Amino acid sequence: MGLAGSRPDERGATVAIRATIWNEYVHERRDAPVAKIYPNGIHVTLGEALREHLGDEVEIRYATLDQPCHGLTTEVLEQTDVLLWWGHVAHRDVSDEVVADVVERVRAGMGFIPLHSALKSKPFLTLMGTTCRINYRHDERELLWTVNPGHPIAQGIPHPVIIPEQEMYGEFFDIPAPDELVFISSFSGGEVFRSGCCFRRGSGRIFYFSPGHETNPVYHQPEIRRIIANAVRWACPDEAVPEQRYGHAPAGWFETS
Amino acid sequence: MGLAGSRPDERGATVAIRATIWNEYVHERRDAPVAKIYPNGIHVTLGEALREHLGDEVEIRYATLDQPCHGLTTEVLEQTDVLLWWGHVAHRDVSDEVVADVVERVRAGMGFIPLHSALKSKPFLTLMGTTCRINYRHDERELLWTVNPGHPIAQGIPHPVIIPEQEMYGEFFDIPAPDELVFISSFSGGEVFRSGCCFRRGSGRIFYFSPGHETNPVYHQPEIRRIIANAVRWACPDEAVPEQRYGHAPAGWFETS
Amino acid sequence: MGLAGSRPDERGATVAIRATIWNEYVHERRDAPVAKIYPNGIHVTLGEALREHLGDEVEIRYATLDQPCHGLTTEVLEQTDVLLWWGHVAHRDVSDEVVADVVERVRAGMGFIPLHSALKSKPFLTLMGTTCRINYRHDERELLWTVNPGHPIAQGIPHPVIIPEQEMYGEFFDIPAPDELVFISSFSGGEVFRSGCCFRRGSGRIFYFSPGHETNPVYHQPEIRRIIANAVRWACPDEAVPEQRYGHAPAGWFETS
Amino acid sequence: MGLAGSRPDERGATVAIRATIWNEYVHERRDAPVAKIYPNGIHVTLGEALREHLGDEVEIRYATLDQPCHGLTTEVLEQTDVLLWWGHVAHRDVSDEVVADVVERVRAGMGFIPLHSALKSKPFLTLMGTTCRINYRHDERELLWTVNPGHPIAQGIPHPVIIPEQEMYGEFFDIPAPDELVFISSFSGGEVFRSGCCFRRGSGRIFYFSPGHETNPVYHQPEIRRIIANAVRWACPDEAVPEQRYGHAPAGWFETS
Repeated sequence: MGLAGSRPDERGATVAIRATIWNEYVHERRDAPVAKIYPNGIHVTLGEALREHLGDEVEIRYATLDQPCHGLTTEVLEQTDVLLWWGHVAHRDVSDEVVADVVERVRAGMGFIPLHSALKSKPFLTLMGTTCRINYRHDERELLWTVNPGHPIAQGIPHPVIIPEQEMYGEFFDIPAPDELVFISSFSGGEVFRSGCCFRRGSGRIFYFSPGHETNPVYHQPEIRRIIANAVRWACPDEAVPEQRYGHAPAGWFETS
Repeated sequence: MGLAGSRPDERGATVAIRATIWNEYVHERRDAPVAKIYPNGIHVTLGEALREHLGDEVEIRYATLDQPCHGLTTEVLEQTDVLLWWGHVAHRDVSDEVVADVVERVRAGMGFIPLHSALKSKPFLTLMGTTCRINYRHDERELLWTVNPGHPIAQGIPHPVIIPEQEMYGEFFDIPAPDELVFISSFSGGEVFRSGCCFRRGSGRIFYFSPGHETNPVYHQPEIRRIIANAVRWACPDEAVPEQRYGHAPAGWFETS
Repeated sequence: MGLAGSRPDERGATVAIRATIWNEYVHERRDAPVAKIYPNGIHVTLGEALREHLGDEVEIRYATLDQPCHGLTTEVLEQTDVLLWWGHVAHRDVSDEVVADVVERVRAGMGFIPLHSALKSKPFLTLMGTTCRINYRHDERELLWTVNPGHPIAQGIPHPVIIPEQEMYGEFFDIPAPDELVFISSFSGGEVFRSGCCFRRGSGRIFYFSPGHETNPVYHQPEIRRIIANAVRWACPDEAVPEQRYGHAPAGWFETS
Repeated sequence: MGLAGSRPDERGATVAIRATIWNEYVHERRDAPVAKIYPNGIHVTLGEALREHLGDEVEIRYATLDQPCHGLTTEVLEQTDVLLWWGHVAHRDVSDEVVADVVERVRAGMGFIPLHSALKSKPFLTLMGTTCRINYRHDERELLWTVNPGHPIAQGIPHPVIIPEQEMYGEFFDIPAPDELVFISSFSGGEVFRSGCCFRRGSGRIFYFSPGHETNPVYHQPEIRRIIANAVRWACPDEAVPEQRYGHAPAGWFETS
């Protein structure tokens, strides 16, 4: 019943992945067509996808814009291994303090999975250093092709995945060249897009994944759910991420340590 | 009248790029439809493209399968800065000795531009270490999109380039992840392809470029000609490629040099 | 008690990693100083390292040059998830048929971990497409620095690792730019080396790791053992590596599948 | 007499590279030992290095912190092809407006060469999205090794370059993995550093180069001067950088253009 999401700790014991799913949660409460597809919010549907594939190997927490600190207090972030992020119309309403905390935590090793329109979210923009601009158009068929079949995020994924209807995102996508490119999409109108991109920043692993427009039921599609579950496993930091030392280093400091 | 192809030597003087265009030259002498498009051979059309864009900044030499050493003697290779390669049905007829010479010369700094079906040529297979296998289908519209707009090979190229009719090459394309990915193509049937890929091997620069099926007049298309000319400039080694030293290195060898 | 090496299968059950450790096993039977350090062969010491860190989550098989098919029959390779390779003086004695089988299996997904002088082994040379030449000198102190602290292979590894005495390998190391660079070493004589390099070829993951000269007890050092165990886990293919299709693709082939 | 720095425009005519050298210019006016090495400021010494290698193929402009807009008005930036940046103690005094202008211009194609302690400059931090933290120590011998001998920035550079005395910068260097790694340094104390790193962001090329501590005469050293001149040529945008379009894209927009 799905891939196991557990990861071993230093002593070989199994430790659940602590995933926090953040959603601005605006469309679903305002726009009837979106509410029909995601009645409890996109975040809950994503959580169900993780539960389906990762079982009790994942602990799921939800956080939304309207909560204090957007649900992302320092305590929550410290207890988060992987942060998923869906946002679209309210990027500017996210507080800069929370963004700074998220970014710092990613650099320290927390996995980060911005989805679809989260390419314009403040944490992703800060971590990329580019504008992340794109071209777009609604209601196209998307074909998602694997260009890195040995990558953990591609495991069990058919080639191609057919998404019957989805918002087109087209190149040029103004990102740094991904450290690993896993998926490239084409659209019925002819555009292409680097739709599944891995980045490492500091000790953290980032997977940007473009499918997921709010008016299309993309997160109910089995292959998409599997990809996101795969990504959560891939992005989860290992137990023993080395701590960094920085600053003045006396000669031979490492010999006496 | 096109971009200047000259490169400066150590003393700032202009030195022409010495391009050798290799073609197996089989289809054009055997298949009437191909002969109609490329009456003098694909190599000559490619040479005209270089002349058009690089003017007298390029010296062009042709070499074909049926010549002694396939036209690629040690002398020719030593006088070649960039080798373009078109082959399709006669890959196996290329002698292993010539292949070894080509590969060695690329590693020493010669630029190498395999075109279209040359993905299955012996030199490219040897340099990649992978199978370079693909999916294919004839007679589709190809759209070529730039995903690296600051790259020298993308200069002056519209986004997208529309190739009205071309053989579809589809992922998965079994190559190492390119060092720089410049173009991604989509096809009317929905497939995608990493169609413009840069690799560095040893001191040599390699640009694989997929457009160019023999029954479609792709090398007569202005944007494609510009891309290939851009690639010749990019792939041309600098005058002062450092020589490598290898082998036993006595302690402090570099202090006395 | 070491990190757990198990990986989940499609149904979430734990499956052991099947590691095959190949050693040319020449020095240890011929050179007294080497025999003293590795009385049962380098392969057995490496196997003990995997057992120490991965416990019964790994199944270990040994194979050596002098066995029929060098111990690497098709059956053995088909039952191998990760192949470790140590060779030095007998690279040429490895049969081209076995090399072809190994290379094909790596491309299909088998992990491959060439160690130290295996940079000149036939499978690694074939997979890289470069000469893999280096500079070298005996008996230097090596410092191994992590430049990718979030990488699974760096987990639990101090920064730097101090190897009291080891053969110096120095740049230029003629390899393709690694897909991920994990470790860089310096030596007491001043040279540097890209000592821990990840490559993906086909569906297979390759980790080249340079420490391990036969006259120094490097594979008895705890940090080195941990790195190699980490690498075995990283290189192990997932259960559900997508199968590739290649060749002629009728229009819409993916819609009917 | 140096390499020619000219680049061809669309019509093949030679156009000079417009380099602007920015220096915070604090140490040289305050610290006698620095003033002795760089009596007219580090920027002027860097300018002399460009003149020496690029001759009249480069137009040089200087800009310093104390000028209005730090000398980097919109007009100046629009007339700059490559911006060199040296800063150390006054990073915080650089206005955020100027930083935003610089970053935007890099994304549009301007080359950017942050030197030494400019790894903590605001424009570089913004473009990288990481902390760029390091370890450091004064007065060590640095050896600079080429790991990408075919790269234009490595042309004519000995292997290694010996810098008799320089500030040690040691890993972990918290940057994204460079798109191309050209140089790795070692220091007498044993540390290593990725000392020459290429990045592409938007249409712009960035080369971070670490040598250049203010109390060591590094920018008077011939090989270092050549590297910086090489980098200016490499980072200079081509004449015909494609303009990007972003935003809503009506179906078939590219067919009518």
